[in-house]
Amino acid sequence: MTLIVHGAPYSTCTQRVLTTLAELNVEDYKLELVDLSKGAHKGPDFVKLQPFGQIPVLQDGDITIFESRAIVRYLCEKFAGHGTPLLGKTVKDKALVSQWLEVESQNYNPATATIVFEKVFGPMFGKPCDDAVVAAQTAKLEKTLDVYEAHLAKSKFLAGDFFSLADLSHLPYTNMLVYAAGKSDLITSRPHVSAWWNAISQRPTFQKVLALQKH
Amino acid sequence: MTLIVHGAPYSTCTQRVLTTLAELNVEDYKLELVDLSKGAHKGPDFVKLQPFGQIPVLQDGDITIFESRAIVRYLCEKFAGHGTPLLGKTVKDKALVSQWLEVESQNYNPATATIVFEKVFGPMFGKPCDDAVVAAQTAKLEKTLDVYEAHLAKSKFLAGDFFSLADLSHLPYTNMLVYAAGKSDLITSRPHVSAWWNAISQRPTFQKVLALQKH
Repeated sequence: MTLIVHGAPYSTCTQRVLTTLAELNVEDYKLELVDLSKGAHKGPDFVKLQPFGQIPVLQDGDITIFESRAIVRYLCEKFAGHGTPLLGKTVKDKALVSQWLEVESQNYNPATATIVFEKVFGPMFGKPCDDAVVAAQTAKLEKTLDVYEAHLAKSKFLAGDFFSLADLSHLPYTNMLVYAAGKSDLITSRPHVSAWWNAISQRPTFQKVLALQKH
Repeated sequence: MTLIVHGAPYSTCTQRVLTTLAELNVEDYKLELVDLSKGAHKGPDFVKLQPFGQIPVLQDGDITIFESRAIVRYLCEKFAGHGTPLLGKTVKDKALVSQWLEVESQNYNPATATIVFEKVFGPMFGKPCDDAVVAAQTAKLEKTLDVYEAHLAKSKFLAGDFFSLADLSHLPYTNMLVYAAGKSDLITSRPHVSAWWNAISQRPTFQKVLALQKH
């Protein structure tokens, strides 16, 4: 049955889902565009699917699931054995993938998303950037990235020597941080983080997802 | 092999892990106390286990895992078939448990944890409460709880008619919100949220974990 992804190509959380589908070699899906500029995500039909009025949402037959990090885990379990083994292969791999997914979610993303909001999305909608907020969150992110630098000196990817869902989950917001928020120095000033970022961001799956924005 | 949990009974994230162990009927573990008041979590031995200097950490033989939400998922998978089936039994159950776990992590917890920090933990360490921050986060949490209220009018627990890891994950911070931060009205003003909170917070497993603080 064809999967339906309700989202938008420029949405970071939609990109997390589309990149996962691409890594799993799943092509039988349809992207149902939700026009955020017209407030479609807050409309009565959409909030029946997603009561918080956020994208993306996945529909798979009688299963409707929202929150991108829950969707990608669901997809990895459903399509286990297809494409890249994003959750790892052993019990230990899986534990470390879960761990680094949570580091992304609890530690890396709050600072990164706030910086991207202040520097990019806020101004796009007429809210001036709050430089004090950017400075505070940048200081937090620096500390997190120092831990990443030490870790990635010993490990090719976050959960080990294999590309996983934990790495993938960092792609959409880091891409905005580097290319839209003017914060590429946070990455390039750390050689191991920089090598990791180059390796993960150049994956053809993610590049293909980014290219969807141009259409 | 005896599991080792590095943490503290008064730490909300440690409570998430200990309550999960209790629900899974796992008794073969040792709580290794980390004395936050003496900065033990930032000491050289501890940061070898947890480079961000945070509790809790789980050690299970050669597997060391941190981030409480990753630890509890690991435990549920390792002890599948023991005690309460916290991840659900069907593919659909599991998808909804993942979804509501992410709602807790991305939506409920940031507001709740900030209110608890401002009203409880900050003042404990000499930082005065910032009432403007509390007001802003309370407004966010009200909106989230309005969605919970509508959802819990149709569903006994978050992911369906069964108590799951998604409900459990709300326990430690909601307990602080209600009993330490003076925000019980957020819960009691919503009848279905209130009934849910009573059902989950009165579970003997969680009460047993809270009682550890008294020793």
